[in-house]
Amino acid sequence: VTCDAYLCIVYYSLSAAKLLVEEGLNAVVLEARDRVGGRTFTARNKETKWVDLGGAYIGPTQNRILRLAKEYGIKTYKVNEQESLVHYVKGKSYPFKGPFPPMWNPLAVLDYNNLWRTLDDMGKEIPREAPWRAPHAQEWDSMTMQQLFDKILWTSAARHFATLFVNVNVTSEPHEVSALWFLWYVKQCGGTMRIFSTTNGGQERKFLGGSSQISECMAKELGDRVKMKRAVYSIDQSKDLVEVKTLNDEVYKAKYVIVAIPPSLNLKIHFNPEMPPLRNQLIHRVPMGSVIKCMMYYRENFWRKKGFCGTMVIEDEEAPIGLTLDDTKPDESVPCIMGFILSRKCRKLCELTKEERKRRICEIYSRVLGSQEALHPVHYEEKNWCEEEYSGGCYTAYFPPGILTQFGKVLREPVSRLFFAGTETATEWSGYMEGAVQAGERASREILCAMGKISRSEIWQSEAESIDVPALPFATTFWERNLPSVGGLLKFMGVSTFLSAVTAAGLVACKKGLLPRW
Amino acid sequence: VTCDAYLCIVYYSLSAAKLLVEEGLNAVVLEARDRVGGRTFTARNKETKWVDLGGAYIGPTQNRILRLAKEYGIKTYKVNEQESLVHYVKGKSYPFKGPFPPMWNPLAVLDYNNLWRTLDDMGKEIPREAPWRAPHAQEWDSMTMQQLFDKILWTSAARHFATLFVNVNVTSEPHEVSALWFLWYVKQCGGTMRIFSTTNGGQERKFLGGSSQISECMAKELGDRVKMKRAVYSIDQSKDLVEVKTLNDEVYKAKYVIVAIPPSLNLKIHFNPEMPPLRNQLIHRVPMGSVIKCMMYYRENFWRKKGFCGTMVIEDEEAPIGLTLDDTKPDESVPCIMGFILSRKCRKLCELTKEERKRRICEIYSRVLGSQEALHPVHYEEKNWCEEEYSGGCYTAYFPPGILTQFGKVLREPVSRLFFAGTETATEWSGYMEGAVQAGERASREILCAMGKISRSEIWQSEAESIDVPALPFATTFWERNLPSVGGLLKFMGVSTFLSAVTAAGLVACKKGLLPRW
Repeated sequence: VTCDAYLCIVYYSLSAAKLLVEEGLNAVVLEARDRVGGRTFTARNKETKWVDLGGAYIGPTQNRILRLAKEYGIKTYKVNEQESLVHYVKGKSYPFKGPFPPMWNPLAVLDYNNLWRTLDDMGKEIPREAPWRAPHAQEWDSMTMQQLFDKILWTSAARHFATLFVNVNVTSEPHEVSALWFLWYVKQCGGTMRIFSTTNGGQERKFLGGSSQISECMAKELGDRVKMKRAVYSIDQSKDLVEVKTLNDEVYKAKYVIVAIPPSLNLKIHFNPEMPPLRNQLIHRVPMGSVIKCMMYYRENFWRKKGFCGTMVIEDEEAPIGLTLDDTKPDESVPCIMGFILSRKCRKLCELTKEERKRRICEIYSRVLGSQEALHPVHYEEKNWCEEEYSGGCYTAYFPPGILTQFGKVLREPVSRLFFAGTETATEWSGYMEGAVQAGERASREILCAMGKISRSEIWQSEAESIDVPALPFATTFWERNLPSVGGLLKFMGVSTFLSAVTAAGLVACKKGLLPRW
Repeated sequence: VTCDAYLCIVYYSLSAAKLLVEEGLNAVVLEARDRVGGRTFTARNKETKWVDLGGAYIGPTQNRILRLAKEYGIKTYKVNEQESLVHYVKGKSYPFKGPFPPMWNPLAVLDYNNLWRTLDDMGKEIPREAPWRAPHAQEWDSMTMQQLFDKILWTSAARHFATLFVNVNVTSEPHEVSALWFLWYVKQCGGTMRIFSTTNGGQERKFLGGSSQISECMAKELGDRVKMKRAVYSIDQSKDLVEVKTLNDEVYKAKYVIVAIPPSLNLKIHFNPEMPPLRNQLIHRVPMGSVIKCMMYYRENFWRKKGFCGTMVIEDEEAPIGLTLDDTKPDESVPCIMGFILSRKCRKLCELTKEERKRRICEIYSRVLGSQEALHPVHYEEKNWCEEEYSGGCYTAYFPPGILTQFGKVLREPVSRLFFAGTETATEWSGYMEGAVQAGERASREILCAMGKISRSEIWQSEAESIDVPALPFATTFWERNLPSVGGLLKFMGVSTFLSAVTAAGLVACKKGLLPRW
């Protein structure tokens, strides 16, 4: 098989192939699995109709994936957030509205407010496309998020929630990730509010019928250019054409290759010649997060009747689940709660049986929602992404301390005729479906540029805003901007106590006639 | 090809094959490269006679590798440490004797003394064979060595040297490695003195003729059981016999397989069935260190005439090299300085040309030794281990924060008929040639046990001490044990200042008759 342009892909770079084919090039997609979609995976059965066991959520500012979906006539619907959300902490449930659960202790309020403000302010210093060039890159990359939290947070309420915030967003622990990397990650999603919100944020919507449909539609359009069960184990660039070998003993030859898999899965491929030293080491250094996605099905969505929308933010070391969202279909059929077993809990609970996980999940739902009905699901689906050889974990790769500054710049640097896509190489919504599309299309344009069909300046392209899913700005209030941090308050109180003391002493001294009079 | 027991190895598990063959089993060794030895690599040419471009040093308590060497009649010789060592810091050279450069500032002396004492004391709490079970495992694994240093060190002199200590021992940065893992690593080498010393420590000796000879002798003994250029890309355990495929399109079938490669290079292999979730994720999480080994050859060893043995401990951000040792042959021929470009410097300097690195290395040697002769080498050899696809880096794998406690226990847990060796799975001198032998022999005995030939209790075996290279204990002095830390001293001074002040105030009050008399 010899082609003008051949694409080796595992994840979403169907978008790369699509663009190249539209440009009239001869492209082939080699997919390791027996299905397309990669880290998205829509299962279909009678109990669920359809269910997204992998990447599912989309929201405003994710304009590329929304454009693709629209092209294929795939509709979106809003995740239910009508009723109250619940924050479960220290064994009690507190209903709330808005993206973040409120704090009650006044010190925690300051601490919490300062947390989001600080993360977003630090993010503003970090260039999306080159976080290693941030003014404080060295310093921030040498610390973990845990260290940053220890530095800026004063209350255990804020510290616990901050930990959950990291767990939920990047399926790893604050002490595992570089502060520079995590700050970059939140920034390139649009900030703390955009990344964490349902309404107006990354979890606003889902695709009606499931997210894999987009890959499936692209694969259908690409026809027999998409080859399944073709895990690539060797890429040889030493000859006229690049030679790519697959586990089923085929050899593909191409002028260019796009590798659209997570960076560390590049290790699945034996390269000739070897990768340059920094890339050879980078791919050992960026592990994938740990998550089990768990769907609990009920006869009816009893939570809505109790005034709960289905979103639970659960802080409890013994609870398997950290965050839930309502997963009932938009026509109110197939009532379901989606929940994530995140990071440390995933690593602990992946050794239980599916039945035992199901039991423990129902128990915590019952406690949080205050309902016996939660104990009687009609069906359960789960997907442990840690066991997938061709994903390595989910949602995305994380950077441990020290790696982004020392190895980051080679993340998407082409190696001769190899180009790199995959959501990890994106600069907007990296880690999401949106990032995968940005990366795939950018890598395709790198090839078009290498072929002399477009200019360098055309490789990176911005995307027009979706008409159907517009983004609202997040307004900050005067108080959010100006309330002191706990540290600031204590300093202020220290200074003012000192000044009061001096003033009082002065008054006393004055009254007692101890001061000289001029 | 069908064999009773087949071994897939890249590194040193020639020792595993040797043991199995001696037990009468039919074993095959599949080696990815066109040479044996893995991370040891003895090059031979007329300029150097022979030179170890990879693992080279051995010392007391490394009894397994010494036993193997003796069996093949390979002699050891002592690395030259007759004359003074040099410590280069803040642009000046300070000659010294003993394993560690002394400090001059009295606070730094306390700080430094407390550093070694603390690292060794913490190490005592950590079980060699299961560091994740240490009483403080959770806490220490959540912090980096940088955090531990920030906590216990008060002087910048100690902090800088502590950084170099991490760089030299594990070719990575203090902010990159888990404190629990690094403390374990130093402990399982016998402590701070044993790991860092030349005389009586890990760098005491080299093998006359080069370290690869051991692998070469084993390979010779194993004959055509050792197959070169057989990189394994697939292991299928779904059939009666395990099927192993190599890049040159051969299929080997065996009852058992030993995988003796660094954990993250397991990713080079496509597994059927997939690895269990924890192992599938572990292998994404343990990167290899970064080092370039540089050998500078001179007409004569001019340093000895100046009273220097050739060991330089260099603290200077601009210097490429962090540590040197004399590499002159024991018959005083081929004068040579061996130097390491470590960790962050390796990542920066690997983008220069070989000539430019050579120039910069000579410059720093000239400055440190105060000699123009250093600028005129007669030959230069270097090996950048970061570019080796089938090592991934050197010397060994490191554990970033959070990984050892969550994934460590599956490091050498067999998966059905697969057993795991490689120096990273050892419990004594893991990261060294010694660890590779321990691991290979242990994995072989796991197979013997699985075959019912030996009992469970025989799998792990201790090794008798080498007669030729006995270990001396490291005696600590009364002062080393009892000098306060800087923190302790300050606390003591604070308390005593307070007590002095109270006493003084009491005396004054007494004299002035302000105290009531009873």
